[in-house]
Amino acid sequence: MRVIVVGATGTIGKAVVKLLAREHEVIRAASHSGDIRVDMTRTDSIERMYSEVGPFDALICAAGVAKFGPLAELSEDDFQLGLDGKLMGQINLVRMGLGRINDNGSFTLTSGILSHQPMPGSSSISMINAGVEGFVRAAALELNRGIRINVVSPPWVKETLVALGMDTSGGMPAERVAHAYLASLTGTRSGVVINARDYA
Amino acid sequence: MRVIVVGATGTIGKAVVKLLAREHEVIRAASHSGDIRVDMTRTDSIERMYSEVGPFDALICAAGVAKFGPLAELSEDDFQLGLDGKLMGQINLVRMGLGRINDNGSFTLTSGILSHQPMPGSSSISMINAGVEGFVRAAALELNRGIRINVVSPPWVKETLVALGMDTSGGMPAERVAHAYLASLTGTRSGVVINARDYA
Repeated sequence: MRVIVVGATGTIGKAVVKLLAREHEVIRAASHSGDIRVDMTRTDSIERMYSEVGPFDALICAAGVAKFGPLAELSEDDFQLGLDGKLMGQINLVRMGLGRINDNGSFTLTSGILSHQPMPGSSSISMINAGVEGFVRAAALELNRGIRINVVSPPWVKETLVALGMDTSGGMPAERVAHAYLASLTGTRSGVVINARDYA
Repeated sequence: MRVIVVGATGTIGKAVVKLLAREHEVIRAASHSGDIRVDMTRTDSIERMYSEVGPFDALICAAGVAKFGPLAELSEDDFQLGLDGKLMGQINLVRMGLGRINDNGSFTLTSGILSHQPMPGSSSISMINAGVEGFVRAAALELNRGIRINVVSPPWVKETLVALGMDTSGGMPAERVAHAYLASLTGTRSGVVINARDYA
């Protein structure tokens, strides 16, 4: 399959690219490097990416920024960062890719454990992640031509915890998380929140 | 208790006001009528509402617009309508009310059944409703002074189905839905999605 991976240079994205490249043609899309540049907060950039890529069988998005911080300190701009960067960014990748993806193709987005297991400081991220999941459940009902859509919910990734200087005992290595994306790509499910923990 | 009801002139809002007014002081807030005007898509308008109202014990939001329609036809503006009108509108009511609400006060927001029981055409609304729920689950973890936050998830409301000319057999009368808001107001739960069906 010809698979676009958005966020290909991130912690999860790199692991997804490595896993998929064994059997698939992977097009690495990212904001600053990769095979193709894309700024998923801008619809003109998404449009350009799809034009340059041409026909494809799947899009995986492992990118998305949102702000962590106390609710009392999060500004409107902090919320907007996640709305643009992780919520509407991913939704626009789907909206604009729907007419271009090959028959029997699939979209796989990313949410995260904070959707249903929040922690102090996660009000914006929990809102974004839950929103992505709500979108995917609904969008799946309207897809035709055998097209599917799912969302992978990763737990805390071990490499991220290391980078943040946090306790890594609950973290899941990115190379294991990547298997949840592969399951979405090669399986038959649609409209599902895939808990990456199931692939630990 | 002194309770602000935003969306007081809507189908659910009117029923909430009627139920609460038996035992509480209700301040009816709405965009075009009521005791006080508020445009919840504008932070300056929310700020003005809180300034005019003064001390209060609870805020209930039964307002929020979002666009229903096929994913292939929903524009960026259609998504933005719900992001402003139901998602960030409600979140801003909480953000800006947090420092003003009395001790042991409560916020009660509104999501809807489409969050977890989507239908074709609900991709934007399902996203919005799920996002509100994710926010509430997380925000509850940071509240102090005995303040609580919940979200009521109404099913299809009978009066709405009548207005839309749809089959009303699955609809729940607004006066019953109102009891879910009362339960949030007078109970002790926080961070919970209250399924209005439980009050049918």
